[in-house]
Amino acid sequence: MNITDYMQTLGRNARAASYLLARAGTAQKNKALNAIADAILRDKAALLAANAEDVEAARLAGLETALLDRLTLTDKGVDSMAEGVRQIAELADPIGEMTDIKYRPSGIQVGKMRVPLGVIGIIYEARPNVTADAAALCLKSGNAAILRGGSEAIRSNQAIARLVTEGLQTAGLPKTAVQVVETTDRAAVGELITLREFVDVIVPRGGKGLIARLRKEARVPMIQHLDGNCHVYLEASADLQKALAIVENAKTQRYSPCNTAESLLVDASEAARLLPPVAAMLTLRGVEIRGCPKTCALVPNAKAATEEDYLTEYLAPIISVKVVDGIDAAIAHINHYSSHHTDAIVTENHPLALRFLREVDSSSVMINASTRFADGFEYGLGAEIGISTDKIHARGPVGLEGLTSQKWVVFGDGQVRS
Amino acid sequence: MNITDYMQTLGRNARAASYLLARAGTAQKNKALNAIADAILRDKAALLAANAEDVEAARLAGLETALLDRLTLTDKGVDSMAEGVRQIAELADPIGEMTDIKYRPSGIQVGKMRVPLGVIGIIYEARPNVTADAAALCLKSGNAAILRGGSEAIRSNQAIARLVTEGLQTAGLPKTAVQVVETTDRAAVGELITLREFVDVIVPRGGKGLIARLRKEARVPMIQHLDGNCHVYLEASADLQKALAIVENAKTQRYSPCNTAESLLVDASEAARLLPPVAAMLTLRGVEIRGCPKTCALVPNAKAATEEDYLTEYLAPIISVKVVDGIDAAIAHINHYSSHHTDAIVTENHPLALRFLREVDSSSVMINASTRFADGFEYGLGAEIGISTDKIHARGPVGLEGLTSQKWVVFGDGQVRS
Repeated sequence: MNITDYMQTLGRNARAASYLLARAGTAQKNKALNAIADAILRDKAALLAANAEDVEAARLAGLETALLDRLTLTDKGVDSMAEGVRQIAELADPIGEMTDIKYRPSGIQVGKMRVPLGVIGIIYEARPNVTADAAALCLKSGNAAILRGGSEAIRSNQAIARLVTEGLQTAGLPKTAVQVVETTDRAAVGELITLREFVDVIVPRGGKGLIARLRKEARVPMIQHLDGNCHVYLEASADLQKALAIVENAKTQRYSPCNTAESLLVDASEAARLLPPVAAMLTLRGVEIRGCPKTCALVPNAKAATEEDYLTEYLAPIISVKVVDGIDAAIAHINHYSSHHTDAIVTENHPLALRFLREVDSSSVMINASTRFADGFEYGLGAEIGISTDKIHARGPVGLEGLTSQKWVVFGDGQVRS
Repeated sequence: MNITDYMQTLGRNARAASYLLARAGTAQKNKALNAIADAILRDKAALLAANAEDVEAARLAGLETALLDRLTLTDKGVDSMAEGVRQIAELADPIGEMTDIKYRPSGIQVGKMRVPLGVIGIIYEARPNVTADAAALCLKSGNAAILRGGSEAIRSNQAIARLVTEGLQTAGLPKTAVQVVETTDRAAVGELITLREFVDVIVPRGGKGLIARLRKEARVPMIQHLDGNCHVYLEASADLQKALAIVENAKTQRYSPCNTAESLLVDASEAARLLPPVAAMLTLRGVEIRGCPKTCALVPNAKAATEEDYLTEYLAPIISVKVVDGIDAAIAHINHYSSHHTDAIVTENHPLALRFLREVDSSSVMINASTRFADGFEYGLGAEIGISTDKIHARGPVGLEGLTSQKWVVFGDGQVRS
């Protein structure tokens, strides 16, 4: 079968399964999820063996260490995979919830019902744990899923897929509710992201490169985020202790997450009070400082920043710093340079805090808190399929609700429109 | 200037204006809207003169009568245009609303704030009233707008644009908050729908042809609906009087709206009771019936329906009819043939009513009410920019809220992530 026909078949199967899933009850979906978790633990040895084959093949192919690490499943990793699936079973079912049911003058009652999106395509890199996690999130939210993981993880993914299928069947759900693409041909991705008739949304989970590539060719809507160039702005009235704690946490707690701060703005009027101690703390932590001329004047060990620096998501112990004239300049800088992911102000001034909150155009805007809080678990979503920097549909951390839509429901008793 | 550069300039202007609009207060936006309404009434004569030139040119170019009618502004039409803008001023401002602010165990408070989408591109046909209406909806929702109307209405649109600009300036808002594309070159549309850097969403307002064309080439998300193939299903327990009233209203009140019923499903077990009187009513109203063999057996004047009939939005006094075996067959038929716009059940059976509500995959699903109710005003949205049959972002009638997004807001007092 050629790839186009194969992906059309997966799409058609998924669409058909989506109607059965949409009407599946909470208990039935939870039964499937718990059966999947049980099967993962039961078949741990087989899973680890399949994964070991993937890792060995990838090593021979010369995959770099960081990617090998993400590909590798450990005994503990399999336990967490099963535990993650069980936790998703325990979340409240978003589907069927009706809200805002109100009587209208015509006598009808109008409101909204939360419903699945339908069919979700997940495209990810060689991280086998995403297979179980994404399958569980789609299933709980009543969506059929088509999963396409990195080709290096194909044996692990197929092993997990078999357990997912078993769990679905245990609960009487169609096995096509979750389908793992069985070919490693790259053309399959191209088909998946243009399968408008059968796929309602694509969720890419991976690095900037993957997402930028998909974005160019996708004809199906995507819930995506490109990068996290996050800012912390120390406003003139900032409390130094809060500033130190927040910048330290936002920049140095971990360097690789997308919600790590990459740029620091400091108000000119208080830069002499705020910047030297914050810069000293960063230097002590091994963070390289790249600053504007005013920054360099206040921080002797700072290097000169280029325009490019202010646009860069370093994912490394480097931070760009700029001294700005007041909140207008800070907001303008952020709206221009930020990736609209997460930006924070440190201030004691109430009106300025609220202006920052309203005017900064990012998916998360924070007052006196570390950008590292931008996360589905920290926000109380219970789980996270990704963080969206788009404004359409879902913005910021995307949990189960981001995988749903709302339809209008009308309750009448024979009413007609006059 | 070439079209690409011209549209890039409009886009850049719109993006810059969007930040000023996002922070504009409710009173300021309302002041602009009322000033626009005042200016429309004051310059009614000039508006009508510009429109008369458009109509004359279109007549000479041989535009068909229905399109000439939509292009033509009347004295009363200008009054309603101004009144429409004033009504939008009176709607509640959706922007800045904060919801679900909750404390998390970390000590931060997390919630959501409603914000504008940013820049909205509206593409429509030769209907000058859309210019004022779309400008007002975007302005009230804090979005910058780029409007591209049908080329036949160019003089009318530019005349309205001047009044919009005046209103914006009266209120101290940037005149680039609403920009009307000044060229009739079709290439401008192609640029607008691919201007990802500067345009956040495209709202096409027009016929199926326009939308299908845009859909192929758009790289910016669209809030769209393709067609309205709406169903009424008479379930076995349907009350005949309600069935008669609902089918009559849904099919015959007006033939051209997208929420008019185009297909009737009747439960086989009660078809002999329900179908003949409903068909007689439709025949009396001049509606042609195209039915399945069982329909034709019960309704002597029915013609045989083809597969194509069940997929057709007639927008005319024709209805397709099918006798179905129970609610499963009805739901399956609707989910297959419907355009996912609006579908209704007529039933006295409570569990079946709720099954229909949950399982029919359409933007509006109704129990014992006419499909004609699917409308922003009937639903209480106050205004409507369109009806979306997409599931992503906005679904069903789209009012001001559909032109907004939500960002996450975090209130802390120095908290860091542990």
